[in-house]
Amino acid sequence: MHASSAPVQTIRIDLGDRSYPILIGSGLLSDAQSWAGLPRAATAVVVSNVTVAPLYMGIVCKALGAHYGRVLEVVLPDGEAHKDWHSLNTVFDHLLDQACDRRTVLFALGGGVIGDLTGFAAACYMRGVPFVQVPTTLLAQVDSSVGGKTAINHPLGKNMIGAFYQPQRVLCDLDVLATLPDREYSAGLAEVIKYGPIADEAFLSWIESSLDALLARDVVALTHAVRRSCEIKAWVVGQDERESGLRAILNFGHTFGHAIEAGLGYGEWLHGEAVGCGMVMAAELSHRLGLMPSSFVPRLRSLIERAGLPVTAPDLGVDRYLELMRVDKKAEDGAIRFVVIEALGRAGMRAADDDLVSEVIQAHVG
Amino acid sequence: MHASSAPVQTIRIDLGDRSYPILIGSGLLSDAQSWAGLPRAATAVVVSNVTVAPLYMGIVCKALGAHYGRVLEVVLPDGEAHKDWHSLNTVFDHLLDQACDRRTVLFALGGGVIGDLTGFAAACYMRGVPFVQVPTTLLAQVDSSVGGKTAINHPLGKNMIGAFYQPQRVLCDLDVLATLPDREYSAGLAEVIKYGPIADEAFLSWIESSLDALLARDVVALTHAVRRSCEIKAWVVGQDERESGLRAILNFGHTFGHAIEAGLGYGEWLHGEAVGCGMVMAAELSHRLGLMPSSFVPRLRSLIERAGLPVTAPDLGVDRYLELMRVDKKAEDGAIRFVVIEALGRAGMRAADDDLVSEVIQAHVG
Repeated sequence: MHASSAPVQTIRIDLGDRSYPILIGSGLLSDAQSWAGLPRAATAVVVSNVTVAPLYMGIVCKALGAHYGRVLEVVLPDGEAHKDWHSLNTVFDHLLDQACDRRTVLFALGGGVIGDLTGFAAACYMRGVPFVQVPTTLLAQVDSSVGGKTAINHPLGKNMIGAFYQPQRVLCDLDVLATLPDREYSAGLAEVIKYGPIADEAFLSWIESSLDALLARDVVALTHAVRRSCEIKAWVVGQDERESGLRAILNFGHTFGHAIEAGLGYGEWLHGEAVGCGMVMAAELSHRLGLMPSSFVPRLRSLIERAGLPVTAPDLGVDRYLELMRVDKKAEDGAIRFVVIEALGRAGMRAADDDLVSEVIQAHVG
Repeated sequence: MHASSAPVQTIRIDLGDRSYPILIGSGLLSDAQSWAGLPRAATAVVVSNVTVAPLYMGIVCKALGAHYGRVLEVVLPDGEAHKDWHSLNTVFDHLLDQACDRRTVLFALGGGVIGDLTGFAAACYMRGVPFVQVPTTLLAQVDSSVGGKTAINHPLGKNMIGAFYQPQRVLCDLDVLATLPDREYSAGLAEVIKYGPIADEAFLSWIESSLDALLARDVVALTHAVRRSCEIKAWVVGQDERESGLRAILNFGHTFGHAIEAGLGYGEWLHGEAVGCGMVMAAELSHRLGLMPSSFVPRLRSLIERAGLPVTAPDLGVDRYLELMRVDKKAEDGAIRFVVIEALGRAGMRAADDDLVSEVIQAHVG
């Protein structure tokens, strides 16, 4: 399959001695070449979940067998609700039971939950072992697997416990997207859409005109969507690895989105669904702050709706929304700060007072 | 008290943008000057334990009140047995309950357990908040608080889950050592002694001739011991922050020591006691590998014994020792590697076969 496809595309994340490539293409999982040149070790450990493992664990372990003397598997339950200390400890238990040393390489085979959790396990195990991201969802390919943010959830907040810890490589095999359920696929499109308003007006227009092809999972359209998303993310992360400034723009829609996820209980809405709806609310906020014309809100809402995502927020009550957003990591000294669109293709951060935020929430709950 | 004492001594840990000072002196805890110039934040959180908090929490919180609008306290149970996920999560629960944002500064007020755990909490909370080490034991002042190694224990191994994460500052107030129980104090002397054979023959001789003064907690002797220990540690860490090579020499005696601690159950022997006994065994191994004359073993054993430390290892059985040492972080591809003394003041790493290690163990268990 690989030979007959487009050549593998490589995007480099430029972070000095922590730099690494993102490989994008077809047939990467089964191609021994994809796995060459990683840190040498006696043991590779592939972490996946009960949904992804039956589809791809065998292929990946076979390919890794060419490079590692021992390839171990850890299979976790599926879903955001399991991105917790308990699952993390399951990984540690396996690693220690099997006497894995600190050269052991971990492989995260799955979506954002597996990637974030495995990355955090790699960051902490013996104070850090190498790891590789092998994202199997669109969302993970265009967003969560790139940039070194790792974390688990805490009952009081999403991604509250984690580390900035860069992978050795990200391997985006576009073929795996064929088996993705529609709902997961749409959730990934939310993060693709995000890159338009925050960084690239032309990309936003391209997504609008290519959405039917993307929904049909056309490989040419997908290649461009994944590549351009990763390029933008690489550019942002390369300038601000630890989110002291610019990188926060990648959280457009995420402050409202996290509140939706936490308020409903993790796993009720998919992360991408919450972010999609959150972007509509953040667009509304950008407008009410006088930054964007009113037409921006229906334009973005329409695109998100066409992508198969919810655009009406759950009615948690305004006070609950505010309470949930105040523990957001972007909050500082008690003020809630939001990523807003200042112009198409340019984002910034703004604090907004509770009254204005309440109006935005009330305008979008259903 | 401060005004009448020797001037504060400052040693710098040189790690580029992660550099920081170690302050050593008397009366530092109550001196507002000690706490000036740290990262600005609305909230400071002091983490301590039930033994140390009644002695020093009030003084520290009062001094911090001059710099932070809100000073919170987290008091954990005392002891190595509590350096675990449960205590770590207690810290996270407090931070989230109190809506602490990612500018919050953590202060580790206690010995090695509090320092390692609080440092790891700081490394993980919202992917990293600043923290300050305020070591209250001799062991923490000369070793664990300096250099950025943070961790918690796992039931299957000590310090298995952690991060390299540097503090903003280390504050060694020598006055607090006056309240340290003799057993804790001796445990700290084990790490002071360590710096002689691995890095400084003259320091080893100085410790031998000054041990009575050190045991009497003479401030002049203590100042030199803490200062020289921190200088050596700073020199080693500055060259090898993440223990890819040289830094491993700081673990002289620790491979045997960790096995003693884990085999007996954490907390049965103090870390410094296990390291003291472990150094005698590592000295024996250095001799049996042909690196050191036989006289080195009784010389080191005698000093460690004079310091009030055990020099006979618990009889866990040879196989159990080997099993416990194989999960040591220094193990690679199954071979156990040891820090050995190559000449007085110079250490290196050697793999040793099981037969030789078994002989060493049998020669030192009682």
